[in-house]
Amino acid sequence: MLITIKKSASAAEIHSVQQLLDHHRLGHRICENRTQTVIGLEGNPSEEIALELRKLPAVEKATRISTPFKLASLAAKPEKTVIHANGVEIGGDKVVLMAGPCSIESQEQLDLIAVELKKAGVAVMRGSAFKPRSSPYSFQGMGEEGLKLHSGAQKKHQMATVTEVMNIQDVEMIAQHVDILQIGARNMQNFDLLKAVGKSGKPVILKRGLSATIEEWLLSAEYIMAHGNPDVILCERGIRTYETSTRNTLDLSSIPVVKQLTHLPVIVDPSHAAGRTDLIPALSKAAIAAGADGLLIEVHNDPKNAKSDGKQSLLPQDFTNFVPDLRKVAEAIGRSL
Amino acid sequence: MLITIKKSASAAEIHSVQQLLDHHRLGHRICENRTQTVIGLEGNPSEEIALELRKLPAVEKATRISTPFKLASLAAKPEKTVIHANGVEIGGDKVVLMAGPCSIESQEQLDLIAVELKKAGVAVMRGSAFKPRSSPYSFQGMGEEGLKLHSGAQKKHQMATVTEVMNIQDVEMIAQHVDILQIGARNMQNFDLLKAVGKSGKPVILKRGLSATIEEWLLSAEYIMAHGNPDVILCERGIRTYETSTRNTLDLSSIPVVKQLTHLPVIVDPSHAAGRTDLIPALSKAAIAAGADGLLIEVHNDPKNAKSDGKQSLLPQDFTNFVPDLRKVAEAIGRSL
Amino acid sequence: MLITIKKSASAAEIHSVQQLLDHHRLGHRICENRTQTVIGLEGNPSEEIALELRKLPAVEKATRISTPFKLASLAAKPEKTVIHANGVEIGGDKVVLMAGPCSIESQEQLDLIAVELKKAGVAVMRGSAFKPRSSPYSFQGMGEEGLKLHSGAQKKHQMATVTEVMNIQDVEMIAQHVDILQIGARNMQNFDLLKAVGKSGKPVILKRGLSATIEEWLLSAEYIMAHGNPDVILCERGIRTYETSTRNTLDLSSIPVVKQLTHLPVIVDPSHAAGRTDLIPALSKAAIAAGADGLLIEVHNDPKNAKSDGKQSLLPQDFTNFVPDLRKVAEAIGRSL
Amino acid sequence: MLITIKKSASAAEIHSVQQLLDHHRLGHRICENRTQTVIGLEGNPSEEIALELRKLPAVEKATRISTPFKLASLAAKPEKTVIHANGVEIGGDKVVLMAGPCSIESQEQLDLIAVELKKAGVAVMRGSAFKPRSSPYSFQGMGEEGLKLHSGAQKKHQMATVTEVMNIQDVEMIAQHVDILQIGARNMQNFDLLKAVGKSGKPVILKRGLSATIEEWLLSAEYIMAHGNPDVILCERGIRTYETSTRNTLDLSSIPVVKQLTHLPVIVDPSHAAGRTDLIPALSKAAIAAGADGLLIEVHNDPKNAKSDGKQSLLPQDFTNFVPDLRKVAEAIGRSL
Repeated sequence: MLITIKKSASAAEIHSVQQLLDHHRLGHRICENRTQTVIGLEGNPSEEIALELRKLPAVEKATRISTPFKLASLAAKPEKTVIHANGVEIGGDKVVLMAGPCSIESQEQLDLIAVELKKAGVAVMRGSAFKPRSSPYSFQGMGEEGLKLHSGAQKKHQMATVTEVMNIQDVEMIAQHVDILQIGARNMQNFDLLKAVGKSGKPVILKRGLSATIEEWLLSAEYIMAHGNPDVILCERGIRTYETSTRNTLDLSSIPVVKQLTHLPVIVDPSHAAGRTDLIPALSKAAIAAGADGLLIEVHNDPKNAKSDGKQSLLPQDFTNFVPDLRKVAEAIGRSL
Repeated sequence: MLITIKKSASAAEIHSVQQLLDHHRLGHRICENRTQTVIGLEGNPSEEIALELRKLPAVEKATRISTPFKLASLAAKPEKTVIHANGVEIGGDKVVLMAGPCSIESQEQLDLIAVELKKAGVAVMRGSAFKPRSSPYSFQGMGEEGLKLHSGAQKKHQMATVTEVMNIQDVEMIAQHVDILQIGARNMQNFDLLKAVGKSGKPVILKRGLSATIEEWLLSAEYIMAHGNPDVILCERGIRTYETSTRNTLDLSSIPVVKQLTHLPVIVDPSHAAGRTDLIPALSKAAIAAGADGLLIEVHNDPKNAKSDGKQSLLPQDFTNFVPDLRKVAEAIGRSL
Repeated sequence: MLITIKKSASAAEIHSVQQLLDHHRLGHRICENRTQTVIGLEGNPSEEIALELRKLPAVEKATRISTPFKLASLAAKPEKTVIHANGVEIGGDKVVLMAGPCSIESQEQLDLIAVELKKAGVAVMRGSAFKPRSSPYSFQGMGEEGLKLHSGAQKKHQMATVTEVMNIQDVEMIAQHVDILQIGARNMQNFDLLKAVGKSGKPVILKRGLSATIEEWLLSAEYIMAHGNPDVILCERGIRTYETSTRNTLDLSSIPVVKQLTHLPVIVDPSHAAGRTDLIPALSKAAIAAGADGLLIEVHNDPKNAKSDGKQSLLPQDFTNFVPDLRKVAEAIGRSL
Repeated sequence: MLITIKKSASAAEIHSVQQLLDHHRLGHRICENRTQTVIGLEGNPSEEIALELRKLPAVEKATRISTPFKLASLAAKPEKTVIHANGVEIGGDKVVLMAGPCSIESQEQLDLIAVELKKAGVAVMRGSAFKPRSSPYSFQGMGEEGLKLHSGAQKKHQMATVTEVMNIQDVEMIAQHVDILQIGARNMQNFDLLKAVGKSGKPVILKRGLSATIEEWLLSAEYIMAHGNPDVILCERGIRTYETSTRNTLDLSSIPVVKQLTHLPVIVDPSHAAGRTDLIPALSKAAIAAGADGLLIEVHNDPKNAKSDGKQSLLPQDFTNFVPDLRKVAEAIGRSL
């Protein structure tokens, strides 16, 4: 159940709602964001308790919701969420292109790539300065220095920026440099990090975990929302299966499934899913046809010498070449790009 | 290695090729189809043996092939295979629609469905009379009686037909009634059945096994080809993963992967993959965008009372409604439908 | 539901049971084995229909069974099934050792291995003459010739024999040569083959499919039982997962799970699961500790030159060396070996 | 490669090693723990560079290591690591029992459970005060208050303690209250957390991620070790597969696989793997037989009203009942319990 609190409610009035819930041992959490205050309940109470709740002065409405995620559910908000990040609209009619290198390496690298991406219609430039790497001996990213380059380069080229955040201590600092925060697949259930980005005030791209169910993915979105941030962008990036011809198995069914469950936008990262560049054009077209609101693609000016993920990074020109095809598919399904 | 035998070669000359291979303990198999005779080798011999082989009078050429499948490989045949089944072309520019009920139940059922499908542009009608069912107590199909209905109905409505074959004893009988044989996912590595349909003279739709790698799938195609049948249509129908919001996980990456490995056409069955009808439109569009040569979709006039797979069967009208959208996507990628 | 038919029931009386089921459109199948006749129902009928059924003269009892498998369920038969094969008891207190080569290759090979195995306490010798191979160019087995060697060698060394059967045409012939038939993992849902071994009169080892759920595995056992053969031995041999350090992931949880669901014995094949010999001792001990009724292990006198599965085959002596450890574990859990 | 630094080396001498590595663009990291300083390299350098390295005054030895984990490898340290935590030895001959509730709920709860566990021979009591929960509306743990209870109760009952740590900010505080830190499966690749517990000075139980390969698991152990902590205890707790009869699939093969790769101890958590209590006895016996150095089992005095994981928690008495059977299996393989 989701209890919407009246704007006029006093702290004491809200407190008495919580007391009633505590009395009935109903797990709950008060969630405030920029437009409303709600109380999320773990389950749905009995009809009797619901009646009691609805009589309380602080309660505007109390909506039964059958899914374990509440704020993220279509039952809570039937209209699609459109997210704004530095002038870019995500979740609207237009399919949004996001691209860039895996790791930020230098000013020159960013400039070289940004010029090409901008021409191709890319709205959001990716690039990370803190990298989750399997080995402690691998390059771990340029750190804040890199973020400054990212921020500078993108102001120059007029694109919004996205970067990965890996721990709660960095959230505030990173939020000052970029427009969108990204939670990587390995951190999808790093609940303290989810809480922290919930309080960051910046839109968040939430990548699906390597073995996360769609329900778990939406519950992680719920964490972010329940801590004050309604601007969550889901990102399908492949799940781990037995198949080895691709790095992960891109689960494009998740796009229409998610659209039946939530109002949040969902984008697709074919680069991490495939782990090889030759499949990117086909998978990008398929993602748009399946209903994705955007694409997140790795592009690097010198993939062979990239500090990470070179194998799955396209050259700017190879990326640019298939953008017109993406546009045609977007138009075929009644969208633009 | 694949050894192409000269058309003029005598039996004795061919025999001496095999003797040489036996002498060097090289696993091989002689494969004859309607246009050529080849000898497939398990691996690739040394350069010395290759030289010896190429000197033999029966040998036209001896091609090293790095993949474990040989006849199915692009190295053996770089141009795309186009398969003809009762006037329908599979693997050409046109994306082929195949649809129909899971089980054949009656004359009326087939007629009702066929009329609608024909109008929507469906070229191949599916329907099975022998059903692989998990439980021995479930409906096992109408048997030959059903095939006669299938064959009759389709002559009347002028569509090609496809039906599942489950055991070697039925291959010949079934091949007399329908235009295309189908090997189900559970039989993808029923090697004796693959050999039998290899000798059937009819095109074969080979569904990917629930946990088959792409390499194993192509090796199963190789079995059919190595036993004389070059007309294999691959069919992606979802793989088994931990995700439960869909019946199986449709692996659309397999389409571009397979296109890089083989000249055979590949189609997609979104119905069995999703196990629910609401995802079929999105997945069908995505499949075409990913490069599929056709779609295989379950359509039933009365899904609630279907003898099998009702949950994933569309009503004819619901199917018909999204065909124009499929056409737009096909045209966006330069194909027709 | 499972309807037990009275021994005294006439054909007409049985027919009237089936008529009643047909009238109520209840999927069912009549199953006869050497001791009883039962009718298995796909689901459970309403209480009213159950009452009607119980009044019919042919009906001894009608047992509601909540699982989709009926004859295989503990509800149908609470006491453990003990299977006898040429003097060997499977499913009793004693843990049964089954071992031998993957493929039968020659008389010498069988004799060399058999002598060692016999000394180590192996009761059943494995060895196949028809091999399911991923590639059509790989060695496909010696055929009936091999079975004769198998049969001869084992008479000489006084062990029971098991061999794989791959197609319905060979069932009868193979059943004449060996004591136990084996259905391989790739054929676990080759339903026509299950029906055929159901009529064979020989005990059947049913390997779990690479991606079969436990329920599907037991339903495949039910197929064999419903076609007249109560002597099914389940065999866990690993399932396909993303982990690559082993060939498959041995699911030892399936042992206690299966014991809670069925009265059938269950054995473990660590060789195919691991795909490497160094894990076999540890996995064999774990399998016994988990409650397995037997082990099926690949042993070959010359693994490097084995015609199949050499990588996972132990030398006879390496196998013999850890048998005493297995015995200790069996005794620790109150069994013998 | 792993470069061992001489105890006598000066900072400047160590710096010149790093300079040489930087010059050759070799990813590396300097790792200091209580007994030694080493430099881990991402890969292995050429023989020429190795020669150069070995000539430097700071270098004691430079060992080529073929696995991506270095400190954790058997090549770096062939003898088994035995870890000491408040008097308990983990990784020695004795199999260690660890048990307790999922969440710490009250003083009474801890006392009730501790008395029984102590009698049964449990050496380490588990209990968490910070809980990773899929839903933001579920009970999130008692926090530091709970840790104080945990610490107090265990002093009273003389057991070592283990608790989960979820974020870097809590590491220091938690390390003051308990003897062993636990990294949960969902945080196995939360690299900043791994670094933080690397500096904590306390032994760490590292649970395997739900879809982590064994290599990734050992690389996460390497993170902890490379940041100063040699005391890592691996914990197998099941991986995510398609099978639904258990919550996860316990991968007992990982025990012997890990033993071939690392000197670190490995324990098994059958409770989280199975998600149901009826399988715990069989899986515990199997884990010991497979070579596990310990067990981690959920025990709760009132599972039905547990604040988390009630379904998989044993009653103290049910746990106590099968401990003698575990002892017999341990003795059968030459260990004690």
